[in-house]
Amino acid sequence: MLRFGVIGYGYWGPNIVRNLRALEGCQVAGICDQTPAARKRIQAAHPGIPVHSDFHELVKSPDVDAIAVITPVWTHYELAKAALENGKHVFVEKPFTSNAAQAEELINLAEQKNLQIMVDHTFLFTGAVRKIQKLLKEGTLGNLYYYDSTRVNLGIFQHDCNVIWDLAPHDLSIMNHLLDKDAEAISATGQAHLNAHEDIAFITAYYPDKMIAHVNVNWISPVKVRTTLIGGEKKMLVWNDLEADEKLKIYDKGVDVKSQEGVYNLLVSYRSGDMWAPQVEQVEALKLELGYFVECIKKSEAPFNDGRTGLKVVRMLEAATKSLAKRGELVYV
Amino acid sequence: MLRFGVIGYGYWGPNIVRNLRALEGCQVAGICDQTPAARKRIQAAHPGIPVHSDFHELVKSPDVDAIAVITPVWTHYELAKAALENGKHVFVEKPFTSNAAQAEELINLAEQKNLQIMVDHTFLFTGAVRKIQKLLKEGTLGNLYYYDSTRVNLGIFQHDCNVIWDLAPHDLSIMNHLLDKDAEAISATGQAHLNAHEDIAFITAYYPDKMIAHVNVNWISPVKVRTTLIGGEKKMLVWNDLEADEKLKIYDKGVDVKSQEGVYNLLVSYRSGDMWAPQVEQVEALKLELGYFVECIKKSEAPFNDGRTGLKVVRMLEAATKSLAKRGELVYV
Amino acid sequence: MLRFGVIGYGYWGPNIVRNLRALEGCQVAGICDQTPAARKRIQAAHPGIPVHSDFHELVKSPDVDAIAVITPVWTHYELAKAALENGKHVFVEKPFTSNAAQAEELINLAEQKNLQIMVDHTFLFTGAVRKIQKLLKEGTLGNLYYYDSTRVNLGIFQHDCNVIWDLAPHDLSIMNHLLDKDAEAISATGQAHLNAHEDIAFITAYYPDKMIAHVNVNWISPVKVRTTLIGGEKKMLVWNDLEADEKLKIYDKGVDVKSQEGVYNLLVSYRSGDMWAPQVEQVEALKLELGYFVECIKKSEAPFNDGRTGLKVVRMLEAATKSLAKRGELVYV
Amino acid sequence: MLRFGVIGYGYWGPNIVRNLRALEGCQVAGICDQTPAARKRIQAAHPGIPVHSDFHELVKSPDVDAIAVITPVWTHYELAKAALENGKHVFVEKPFTSNAAQAEELINLAEQKNLQIMVDHTFLFTGAVRKIQKLLKEGTLGNLYYYDSTRVNLGIFQHDCNVIWDLAPHDLSIMNHLLDKDAEAISATGQAHLNAHEDIAFITAYYPDKMIAHVNVNWISPVKVRTTLIGGEKKMLVWNDLEADEKLKIYDKGVDVKSQEGVYNLLVSYRSGDMWAPQVEQVEALKLELGYFVECIKKSEAPFNDGRTGLKVVRMLEAATKSLAKRGELVYV
Repeated sequence: MLRFGVIGYGYWGPNIVRNLRALEGCQVAGICDQTPAARKRIQAAHPGIPVHSDFHELVKSPDVDAIAVITPVWTHYELAKAALENGKHVFVEKPFTSNAAQAEELINLAEQKNLQIMVDHTFLFTGAVRKIQKLLKEGTLGNLYYYDSTRVNLGIFQHDCNVIWDLAPHDLSIMNHLLDKDAEAISATGQAHLNAHEDIAFITAYYPDKMIAHVNVNWISPVKVRTTLIGGEKKMLVWNDLEADEKLKIYDKGVDVKSQEGVYNLLVSYRSGDMWAPQVEQVEALKLELGYFVECIKKSEAPFNDGRTGLKVVRMLEAATKSLAKRGELVYV
Repeated sequence: MLRFGVIGYGYWGPNIVRNLRALEGCQVAGICDQTPAARKRIQAAHPGIPVHSDFHELVKSPDVDAIAVITPVWTHYELAKAALENGKHVFVEKPFTSNAAQAEELINLAEQKNLQIMVDHTFLFTGAVRKIQKLLKEGTLGNLYYYDSTRVNLGIFQHDCNVIWDLAPHDLSIMNHLLDKDAEAISATGQAHLNAHEDIAFITAYYPDKMIAHVNVNWISPVKVRTTLIGGEKKMLVWNDLEADEKLKIYDKGVDVKSQEGVYNLLVSYRSGDMWAPQVEQVEALKLELGYFVECIKKSEAPFNDGRTGLKVVRMLEAATKSLAKRGELVYV
Repeated sequence: MLRFGVIGYGYWGPNIVRNLRALEGCQVAGICDQTPAARKRIQAAHPGIPVHSDFHELVKSPDVDAIAVITPVWTHYELAKAALENGKHVFVEKPFTSNAAQAEELINLAEQKNLQIMVDHTFLFTGAVRKIQKLLKEGTLGNLYYYDSTRVNLGIFQHDCNVIWDLAPHDLSIMNHLLDKDAEAISATGQAHLNAHEDIAFITAYYPDKMIAHVNVNWISPVKVRTTLIGGEKKMLVWNDLEADEKLKIYDKGVDVKSQEGVYNLLVSYRSGDMWAPQVEQVEALKLELGYFVECIKKSEAPFNDGRTGLKVVRMLEAATKSLAKRGELVYV
Repeated sequence: MLRFGVIGYGYWGPNIVRNLRALEGCQVAGICDQTPAARKRIQAAHPGIPVHSDFHELVKSPDVDAIAVITPVWTHYELAKAALENGKHVFVEKPFTSNAAQAEELINLAEQKNLQIMVDHTFLFTGAVRKIQKLLKEGTLGNLYYYDSTRVNLGIFQHDCNVIWDLAPHDLSIMNHLLDKDAEAISATGQAHLNAHEDIAFITAYYPDKMIAHVNVNWISPVKVRTTLIGGEKKMLVWNDLEADEKLKIYDKGVDVKSQEGVYNLLVSYRSGDMWAPQVEQVEALKLELGYFVECIKKSEAPFNDGRTGLKVVRMLEAATKSLAKRGELVYV
């Protein structure tokens, strides 16, 4: 029986607690939140589970095996470090940390102590991402040309970070996961309108072999968009995450280059065939992810979404933020 | 009666000829194309109109008052120059020229000769753009935050230019027209996959007063998208040009910042009200545009889409191409 | 404090219990279900609330003021009658009863005992229906021409009734509510493919003043559709209940008949103007409905969705079923 | 060389003339229209083709082999009869005639004279219908349960017939063609609001083997809808004719009935799998149809859309109109 202490009961914390409680082989040994209102909500929803206002009580408790850190990003390092130092495994919200140095320190600490870190890139466990990964592994799309994601909607404004740190971790983690390559360099542009933090931003990530990725994130859009285009040599894919039933559409469309004797002799032919919308498994991604974390701890195996995976995303966020300040200048990751 | 000579009868030329013939106060005095196949098509469709294979016959003819240059961009300068030197007004396809120096020379030549140049930014005459312009002039959207356009589809690959020179002139000319401001600097990223020219590209244009514009153009998309988001202080607009009936949607949505005493005291409130899809006039934009050109020539007035307007777009295309080569580095326009 | 006994804890019962418990001024005094599995679920979800297997315990209990009957339609009469006879108010699932005679008897019984009946036509409390009602009352659409609803999807097959009794009560109750008129006659067609009950059916209801209503219900559709067109003299409305944000769209479109001197002189002109999507209040309809029921009981007032309202729907269902058997023959309501 | 005389140059006539002129092996020998304005348009568009105001000149001309009757339905009988009597093949607009007796007379006349009649059910030649037919023939959908079509939009009001005679011939001819069965009986309901002719109507057609078809036609809808659902035992299909790219979607969805020992033991299981949008050939249906007519005449073969096919549609229209007057009462075809 794996005993979890959960720190942070704001927007996402309740989902963590609910899923941990429903999971076989684990239990919630205590929940901590600094806010009195949050503690009241914990008591109402989970009578019988100890409530704490001081996180030290949880991270030092001998009755706790793992700590879930479900708090703002700037607190992750301190909380995760305290947990690891006290011999607890750590499940931490994305983005992993505020900078790469913090992430590296936590990764080293976990290795020394033989503990597991999982960064909560929940999207990697959705039916859509798992299906896309399967299609890519099977070579259905052929060599990839580009990955182009739009993730825009109205709000929620964050006060402690720009729109890139808020929304782009989803896309960056998915891209890295699916492409199975590391981005080489990043160019980012954007603008802040209402306070010091950018509320609209555009990220281009250059990958090896001419793969290019683009992420359009925006807090001030009148409509919600969650659409990703993935262009491949053989087929192309559209993922619309707002569709209830047909999230993925695979198009038998493409471009074939026949010969290339001089610019004007390039023969480009277009293919246009059937479209196919494979069924996407409907699971609660968070449930799968937490179950997988419990398994990893039991087997003493690093999850694929471990600290190193989280670190890569943090490095890309840092590069993007640096490029943003220089209005698009390329920053190597 | 204004007598037009038309050079180029490929994809777009037939539309120019058809509209000129239907227009009161003007006639088509001759059509020129180098390709025998095109000349056959001209004869079949327009028996009675003289057909030429050498453009000099048209630009030197005393029976011609204006020349329409409907040919690839790298020929515009030579053809337009010959026309102006022979005292003919010039209607020229977008983009105006291959570089800014050519455009400047043509503008000067036209001024010396007291002739008019119109660059065929047809989109500026569509019901959608005219309606958006009206809404912006009336202040419906308030101060603008951003302009974000996606213009992607499969093909047609151009052999002599990248996707920016092919697709972005639409967006750049519309942005300049609607915003009534000049872009200060541009960052562009992209990638070429099939030949030397980029087939996917992302342009960010920085305008004064924190306005930011973004254009996503792509020749290798499985789906056709023609969507522009315009975010304003008061209202926000979505223009989906592929919609038959509801091309424009105006959202009474927005963000109000109440106070700003320190980062954590920033109070952001969200407005969410009705949506409104104004009726958009259905006209053939090209017909309006050509009629306006005839008017401008009669009145000896420069059209709003004159050479200077075309030059601004060319300067932005040059800046974007330069930035593209430097993978996003900012280039001042 | 109004004390509710809830009978039936299948698909819908849990929502009733959850809402009743959250409501001020009322409490759940006991829950009854015949199935051991359901009773287990009650105990897990609502520890502390008495669980019963025999409904008599609830309807006879002096600690219960009102009974919610959330069971299959063929049990409504017996359960509601027992409740009323024991002096309890009754909240009952739609459709009210299996036939009009049962409904009439329950209405009379309630009147004699001075008790309230509410039939759970939840849709009448949604933001969409309340907004449409407001628009109709304000005369926005003018005289109505037609009401045309499509409500199709795959499953859930009911074993004890046809698709009309399962899906059409929504539409019939909404139509009656919005039109504020009673249907005069009904024609229904349909077909049973998998068992004895029709799985696809089409109902036409003739209302006074040339108003015509049509309901298309179907359990074997590959796609889910919840769309209603309402055509009026002045404006027309489309209600797509599957849209998250723009459920209602009002079109300034219509037909004007100018004169009518002989068939061939009829001048029909078409209006086509703006479209407008009013914001629709997002509330939990069931919460509003139950709160309203508590109010009605307190004030000894009949709710607008009382037994008589439920009876009208039952009469239409009976007429439709009769017409269905005669393959479309008109049946007066 | 087959020489056509075309009678009627209103809305559809110009398309007939344009296609006949472009077709190999046939020519347009003359065009007739009673309206001076139409004759002017003919002369402008087709200089060199003889224009007539009296149809007798065409039907009696020795230079004409076939007559295309592109006029209002109430004139079809007289014009087609005159053509046949003068030994001309006949291509006639849908619906074939105003009643079944006229259709039968024309069919007999054509047989006696060994002439061909083709009724212009253009939709049968579209890529969508041909693809659906192929899928049905291959058994992709299994036994069919239902065919449900919605064909609504604003206007055009016809003065000489109701909405059924105007819009339903499309659906009825497609249904007959695809199902390869004859409807047994029809129930129709509807309402006239603006003049004596119904502007909204609902038709149910009962076919053998529990197949049921439904057609919803309406001239006073704020939105244009052209959607058909076809439900089969194995798969289900949605045809949205307004989609540019994905007109047909085939769903691997369905219902399996396992056993049927008593009402409550019926085990219904649901299948839900991939969706597939086959590419639909983009052809001009009218061009295919006219080319096919020319072939049929050459080979002295009756086309599949011959007079008998047209007659079946007329019989269904007559049955529907009769049922409409009796407000849904079943009428055998």
